[in-house]
Amino acid sequence: MSFLHRIPVRFDDVDYARILYYPRAFTFCQHAFEAFCEAELGAPLRSLIDERRLGFPIVHTEADYSAPLQYGDECQVQLEVERLSERSVTFRYQLWRQGMTLCVRVKIVQAAVDLTTFKACLIPDDLRARLERHLIAAG
Amino acid sequence: MSFLHRIPVRFDDVDYARILYYPRAFTFCQHAFEAFCEAELGAPLRSLIDERRLGFPIVHTEADYSAPLQYGDECQVQLEVERLSERSVTFRYQLWRQGMTLCVRVKIVQAAVDLTTFKACLIPDDLRARLERHLIAAG
Amino acid sequence: MSFLHRIPVRFDDVDYARILYYPRAFTFCQHAFEAFCEAELGAPLRSLIDERRLGFPIVHTEADYSAPLQYGDECQVQLEVERLSERSVTFRYQLWRQGMTLCVRVKIVQAAVDLTTFKACLIPDDLRARLERHLIAAG
Amino acid sequence: MSFLHRIPVRFDDVDYARILYYPRAFTFCQHAFEAFCEAELGAPLRSLIDERRLGFPIVHTEADYSAPLQYGDECQVQLEVERLSERSVTFRYQLWRQGMTLCVRVKIVQAAVDLTTFKACLIPDDLRARLERHLIAAG
Repeated sequence: MSFLHRIPVRFDDVDYARILYYPRAFTFCQHAFEAFCEAELGAPLRSLIDERRLGFPIVHTEADYSAPLQYGDECQVQLEVERLSERSVTFRYQLWRQGMTLCVRVKIVQAAVDLTTFKACLIPDDLRARLERHLIAAG
Repeated sequence: MSFLHRIPVRFDDVDYARILYYPRAFTFCQHAFEAFCEAELGAPLRSLIDERRLGFPIVHTEADYSAPLQYGDECQVQLEVERLSERSVTFRYQLWRQGMTLCVRVKIVQAAVDLTTFKACLIPDDLRARLERHLIAAG
Repeated sequence: MSFLHRIPVRFDDVDYARILYYPRAFTFCQHAFEAFCEAELGAPLRSLIDERRLGFPIVHTEADYSAPLQYGDECQVQLEVERLSERSVTFRYQLWRQGMTLCVRVKIVQAAVDLTTFKACLIPDDLRARLERHLIAAG
Repeated sequence: MSFLHRIPVRFDDVDYARILYYPRAFTFCQHAFEAFCEAELGAPLRSLIDERRLGFPIVHTEADYSAPLQYGDECQVQLEVERLSERSVTFRYQLWRQGMTLCVRVKIVQAAVDLTTFKACLIPDDLRARLERHLIAAG
């Protein structure tokens, strides 16, 4: 099941070309991810970091930009889990303009890191179970 | 004596109106302040924070915008010390377009804080002496 | 009557001191202002700009920072009209942490500009009437 | 031949984890690209856009993050042309910490667009010749 988060494109989100400044697409993904943590992973990202001492640093990204997002658009960010391995998770984001035009496709790979030792670690079972619900169906 | 720092106005510094997004003027001041610390206060801001455990949180700002800065402009940031009290310092910044048109005047008051106790503290003597050199001449 | 807009403080809103990067307070005000235009002025800011050819450039700001906003906080932005003159409007913003602690007080003066001639102009009557509803009561 | 551009990592470039906020790596690439246009393509990016009516929208990016950049680091951005086709160019960026540790590898594909017709166009010969000098040697 995919997770949806809506973000308006603001006055300050655009660049000189008057379209969404392209790295801002990743900030939209980050904000969708934070909403996802809170709604679907059972805890705000900050408490995962500060209380469970668990971090999810980004190790790889890919993005394809096919249509512009403009000031005043409502961007709908659709988040899904593309791949779930023992120590990392690959998210797939789609940024839609007014829910009708697919503008940006993003893939983000995040590793699980124990913030006490700063070493890679296993994704805890409870989070794994919650992430699995959002896996893109195979086939 | 005033301190000068040059910053190009970039593709991503402008907003939908295609002029410098107004809060970005403060970021220009912040970057000029960091260059000032390194050149004139004898240490990068980070080492003041991490090694001397000294912070300078912003407590008050004022800004007057009289002319726009645009993409491609070279912004010259002129920094001076307007007032130096025992526990705070007031900086005055002027943002000039190509050194010819005054676009933004900014006043920033920063308090000295001991980052070990998180309490206001005296500005250390060595920093005070260095800041004094940049005081706007009275009269 | 004051207008309220809620904004979560995100992972990327903080600086090295791990508190809201101080110019970001203005971005929070900008986003509250955009929500205010849509809800209370009868049109999104973009349509004021593009259709009515009306701009509201910032000419003056003041801000007082009394308490930090931190990652994970819900910032409640309270917007009121402090002063309404023929050609400009002064907004007062208060940024509250969880609705309980006043963290930042901001004053922003915006001039009305005819974007066809790029000259100062009168605030149109319909907008004036709507802005008046949010004037801070005198006395 | 590769092109080099140095950028200090500032107080406001880091996130709650106190490392470079990962989308900021693209902003570093953008600023290196603007310096590259000015130094190596014979014209600032803004004049390519406004005078030659030529745009280079980003259509695809990839990034690998292998080590963190921190506040106070000097980031050295190394830019090379990885591939040059008739209508697009692929840049390869490497972000080095103090010139010693490779932290981020980025690939950015930009299409040439005629800003009068908003259609894809050929990369003009003079720019192609200048870009070719920065092609990564084959083999």
